[in-house]
Amino acid sequence: MTIRLGPNRYGKAEIRLVRVVRGTERHELKDLNVSVALVGDFAAAHLDGDNSKVLPTDTQKNTVYAFAKEHGVGEIEEFGLSLAHHFVSSQPSVQRARISIDEHGWDRLGPHSFRRQGGEVRTATVTHDRAGGTWVVSGMTDLVVMNTTDSAFAGFIVDRYTTLAETGDRILATAVTARWRHREPSGDWAGSFAATRGLLLEAFAGTFSRALQETLYAMGAHVLEHRAELAEVRLSLPNRHHFVVDLTPFGLDNQNEVFHADDRPYGLIEGTVLRDEAPPAGPAWE
Amino acid sequence: MTIRLGPNRYGKAEIRLVRVVRGTERHELKDLNVSVALVGDFAAAHLDGDNSKVLPTDTQKNTVYAFAKEHGVGEIEEFGLSLAHHFVSSQPSVQRARISIDEHGWDRLGPHSFRRQGGEVRTATVTHDRAGGTWVVSGMTDLVVMNTTDSAFAGFIVDRYTTLAETGDRILATAVTARWRHREPSGDWAGSFAATRGLLLEAFAGTFSRALQETLYAMGAHVLEHRAELAEVRLSLPNRHHFVVDLTPFGLDNQNEVFHADDRPYGLIEGTVLRDEAPPAGPAWE
Amino acid sequence: MTIRLGPNRYGKAEIRLVRVVRGTERHELKDLNVSVALVGDFAAAHLDGDNSKVLPTDTQKNTVYAFAKEHGVGEIEEFGLSLAHHFVSSQPSVQRARISIDEHGWDRLGPHSFRRQGGEVRTATVTHDRAGGTWVVSGMTDLVVMNTTDSAFAGFIVDRYTTLAETGDRILATAVTARWRHREPSGDWAGSFAATRGLLLEAFAGTFSRALQETLYAMGAHVLEHRAELAEVRLSLPNRHHFVVDLTPFGLDNQNEVFHADDRPYGLIEGTVLRDEAPPAGPAWE
Amino acid sequence: MTIRLGPNRYGKAEIRLVRVVRGTERHELKDLNVSVALVGDFAAAHLDGDNSKVLPTDTQKNTVYAFAKEHGVGEIEEFGLSLAHHFVSSQPSVQRARISIDEHGWDRLGPHSFRRQGGEVRTATVTHDRAGGTWVVSGMTDLVVMNTTDSAFAGFIVDRYTTLAETGDRILATAVTARWRHREPSGDWAGSFAATRGLLLEAFAGTFSRALQETLYAMGAHVLEHRAELAEVRLSLPNRHHFVVDLTPFGLDNQNEVFHADDRPYGLIEGTVLRDEAPPAGPAWE
Repeated sequence: MTIRLGPNRYGKAEIRLVRVVRGTERHELKDLNVSVALVGDFAAAHLDGDNSKVLPTDTQKNTVYAFAKEHGVGEIEEFGLSLAHHFVSSQPSVQRARISIDEHGWDRLGPHSFRRQGGEVRTATVTHDRAGGTWVVSGMTDLVVMNTTDSAFAGFIVDRYTTLAETGDRILATAVTARWRHREPSGDWAGSFAATRGLLLEAFAGTFSRALQETLYAMGAHVLEHRAELAEVRLSLPNRHHFVVDLTPFGLDNQNEVFHADDRPYGLIEGTVLRDEAPPAGPAWE
Repeated sequence: MTIRLGPNRYGKAEIRLVRVVRGTERHELKDLNVSVALVGDFAAAHLDGDNSKVLPTDTQKNTVYAFAKEHGVGEIEEFGLSLAHHFVSSQPSVQRARISIDEHGWDRLGPHSFRRQGGEVRTATVTHDRAGGTWVVSGMTDLVVMNTTDSAFAGFIVDRYTTLAETGDRILATAVTARWRHREPSGDWAGSFAATRGLLLEAFAGTFSRALQETLYAMGAHVLEHRAELAEVRLSLPNRHHFVVDLTPFGLDNQNEVFHADDRPYGLIEGTVLRDEAPPAGPAWE
Repeated sequence: MTIRLGPNRYGKAEIRLVRVVRGTERHELKDLNVSVALVGDFAAAHLDGDNSKVLPTDTQKNTVYAFAKEHGVGEIEEFGLSLAHHFVSSQPSVQRARISIDEHGWDRLGPHSFRRQGGEVRTATVTHDRAGGTWVVSGMTDLVVMNTTDSAFAGFIVDRYTTLAETGDRILATAVTARWRHREPSGDWAGSFAATRGLLLEAFAGTFSRALQETLYAMGAHVLEHRAELAEVRLSLPNRHHFVVDLTPFGLDNQNEVFHADDRPYGLIEGTVLRDEAPPAGPAWE
Repeated sequence: MTIRLGPNRYGKAEIRLVRVVRGTERHELKDLNVSVALVGDFAAAHLDGDNSKVLPTDTQKNTVYAFAKEHGVGEIEEFGLSLAHHFVSSQPSVQRARISIDEHGWDRLGPHSFRRQGGEVRTATVTHDRAGGTWVVSGMTDLVVMNTTDSAFAGFIVDRYTTLAETGDRILATAVTARWRHREPSGDWAGSFAATRGLLLEAFAGTFSRALQETLYAMGAHVLEHRAELAEVRLSLPNRHHFVVDLTPFGLDNQNEVFHADDRPYGLIEGTVLRDEAPPAGPAWE
C-alpha cells in the first residue's frame, strides 16, 4: 500500500483591497476581495516541510497590493489576468495560477463620496496555466429577483410521498448566482458584464415559468444568443419559497396577496447552458 | 430574601411577510420582517405556568398576516401603529405593544418583476402604551458610505500606549445605523424617510471630518435642522478602518491610493442629537 | 429651537486577543474578543472636531494588548475591571468606562494543542464610573438546549386570529442568552460562572414547562436561590420551534418523533428575575 | 451555432430534520440538515417546461421526513444510502441521486434533555448511480484547532514582493474541513468517524509543522495508515493567522504571548492524500 499526495493548491484568500484613483478632483473607487490559488511543484513542502519552492501567501498579498498601485486595477478580469500571468511567469514552481475576485459596487454621492450598493457581487475567476491556456470566467453572486406571477408548477410526478398541489400562479423568487465562460481571455469586460447582467434580468422577467428549470435554461440561452464572446453559462438558482398564507380561518381570502417567505428548506436548481462548438473548458471550473 | 419577577416581555420575532398588491396589471410589492413584543400582566405565566392572559405568539403571527390582507401594509410606520393598537385594545392583559419592522426595498424590473436592492434596510419601531402614549421611531440599518478624502484625525491625547500618527487625509467609511424619533405618531412617513435619508447622506458627504464624532453630530443636526417632525436622532457609526498599505519595500509610494479594508477591531461611535424642547421619549427606545 | 448633543460614547470594538501563557511545557490559552466604550467629556470632538480630550480608539486597542502582557488576563471579569479602572483613572476626560468581553473556550489536546469548543460564549461586562460605582455583569450567549418532552402549552387566550391547538407534549428548544449582575465587583469569578451555568442547565432540564415563561423564571430563580453573590438574572430565550411533521398522508403516525426545525419566525421570551434587596443597577445594563 | 443544455441537477436543500427516539424513558436525538440533488432525464423541464419526469422537491422533503419515521435515521451514511437508493430505484428518470447530510451533535443533560455541542459538524455525502456505482464520503466541517508552538515557516522563496520574516516559532491555527472517501458503501460508520476524527487531531497536535502543507499531509497520511476502509482524504485548511503584537513601544517584550487573531486575508491550503490502489472516485466529489 502506497500513500501519496494528490491534487493540491494553496494561496492567500480574501485580500480586501480598496483602490482609489485620485488624479482629479473626482475620485474613482474599486472595492475588491481577491483570492490567489497556486498549483505546481509543492510536493516537498507537504512531504518534507521544504519551502524552497513555496512563494509565501504573505508575498502573494503584497503582490496584489503592489500591482494595484503599479498597474492599477481596471476591470477585475484584467487585474486577474495580470496577477495570474505574474505568478506563473515569475515562479518556475508555479504551474497554474487562479485569481478569484469579488467586486462590490459603489454609487457616487459626490466627487469623493460613495455609497456601497449592497446588491449582487460581480465576480471574475482567471486561470492561467504554464502550458499556455488561459480561461476567464465572469459572473455575479446573489442577484435577488422575484416575479409575483407568470410562474406555474404542474404536471409533475406524483408518488406515495407527494402532497404538493399543482398551481397555475405562484411567486417565483431566487438569488441568481451565475458564471459565464469567455471564449477568449481578452475583450470588453465591462461591456460584456453589463450586457450579460441585463440579459439575465430580461430573461428572468420575460419568461412565463412552468418550472424554475425552464427559467434557468431561458436565462442561459438568452445570454448565449446575444453574446458571441461567451461559450458557456452556469446558473445556480435557489427556489426561495413564498407560501400563500391560509387566511380562511379568519374569514379572509388570499388570492396570492399575502405570503410567508420561508428560509429552509429550499429547492436548488443548477444547470449549464453551452454552445456545441465551445472551446474546451480545461481547468476553468475546477 | 425575596426573589421576584422583574421587567419582561414576549412576542413573535421575525415574521417574514411579503405582500403583493395585484389590483392592476402592475403589481406592487412589500417585503417585511415584523417582530411583536408585548408587555403586560404576564406574571402568572412565569410563576404558575398559567397562560390564561397570554396571547400565543402564533396568534400574533396570524394577526400580522391577516392585517396585511385586511388593512394592507402601506408605510411600515402605519402598519406598526395598526398592529400595536390592535394588541393593546383587544387584550386587557397587554399594557404595551411594540412592533418592530424591517423593510427590504425592491426595484422594479417589469409590471410584476422586481430586483431586491440589497443596500440598507428601512426600519420602524412603534410603541403603544395603554396609558395613552404612542411613539414612532423610524430609521435605517447598514447604509455603507465612504469619503475617500476630507477626513483627518489629529490633536488627540497621547499617552504611554499611543502609537497612532496624526493624519490630515484618510478614508472615512462607515455603515450608518440611524434611528429618528418622531414628535407625533402621525405624518407623511414615506416623505419623512426619503428626506431624512437624503439629509444624512448630504451631511456625510459634505462634512470635512476631523473626528468621526464630528461627522456624527453633523449628520444628526442636519436632519433636525430640516425636519421639524423629528425630535431626536440616534446614530451608531462603526469606523471601518482602511489602512494605507506600505509599499515602500517595493519601491512604490502610496499617496492614499491602495488600502487594506480591515474587519476587526473597529472604532464604534454612538451618539444622540436632540432638540431641547423635544417631547419625552418614554419607552420609545427601550 | 436648540439642537444639542445628547448621550454619547465611543471606543474600540472587537479587539481579538489571544493570550498564551508559556511559562511551562504546558501552555495555557485565552481567546477573547474585547470591546471598550468610554463616556465622558467628548462634546468638543462632536461640536468642533477638537480631539484634545479624546483617547484614540487605536490607543485603547494597544492598551488591551499591553495589559494582557503586563498583568495577564486571568478571568475576564478581572481583566475588564483592570482595563476599566485604567481608562477612568488615567484620563480626566473619561467619566465612565465599559469593557465588554467575549471568551471562547478551548479544550486541551496536548501540552500546547487545543480545540475550540464552539458552543456558548462566556461574557463579562464591567462598568466603572468615576463617581465611584463599579458593576460587573457576567453571562453567556447561545447555549443551545432542548427538552424532547416535559413541555406543554395550553389554556391560552383564544381570539379571532388564534388557530394554534393546545398541546400537552412538545419539544422545547432555545438558545439561552443569560446575563447576571454581581452584588459586588469582586469574587470568585470562575467558580461563580461554572456554578451559575450548571444551575441554568439544571433548571432547564428539570422544569416541566407549561410556558417558556415558566422555564425562564425557574432558571433565573434557581440561580438566585443558590448564588448569594448575584443580584439579578436577565434571560433572553428564543423559542426555536420544532413542528411535528404530518405523516398521515403517507399512512404513518408521528408521536413526536419526526420534527421540522424551523428558522423564522420564532417566539422570543425576555425577562428579569431579581432580589428585592438587590443593590441598584446603576448604568450596569445600559 | 447550437445552444444546448449541459450538466444539470436539482433537489431540495437544507431539510432541517430532528428525529427523536422515544421508546424508553431515555430519549435519543438526531439533528440533521439533509440536502437532495438528482441527476437524470430532466431536459424537457428545462426546454419545454414539461415536468412529467420531475419529482417535486417538495416530495423529496416529504420523503426525508417519512423515511426518518419508517426506517429511522441511524448513522447519517446509512440514512443517505437509504434515501439515494430510493430515489434511483423508484423514479426511472433519476440517473443518480446525491444525499448530503450535516449532523449537529448534542450532549446529554438528562433522560430527555440535551445541549447542542456547537463545534464541528459531521458530514456525509452519498452518491448512488443507476449504473451501479455507490460512493460514500464522510467528513467534518470547521473543527477549529491550534498549536501554540511547534510551528515554523522558513526557507521560502524571496522575491521582489516578499517582506515576511522567517520564524522558528509561531501559532498554527486552522478550521479543519475534511472529507474522506470510503472504499466500500458499507461499514461501521460511527466507529470509522470517531477513529478518523481522533487521528486527524492526533496528527495535528503531534506534527512539528514547517509549513501548513506539511501538517495537511501528515493528517491525511495518518488517517490512511490506520484506516484501511478509506481510500482518500481531502483537507481544506485555512491558516488563521495570529500575529504577534509589537509591544516594544510600551517597553514590553512579547515572546509569543500576546497575539492579534486576524480575520482576513488568510492562507488557504487544500490538498488530497490518497492510496495508489484506491478504487476510482467516479462522481463522488462532483
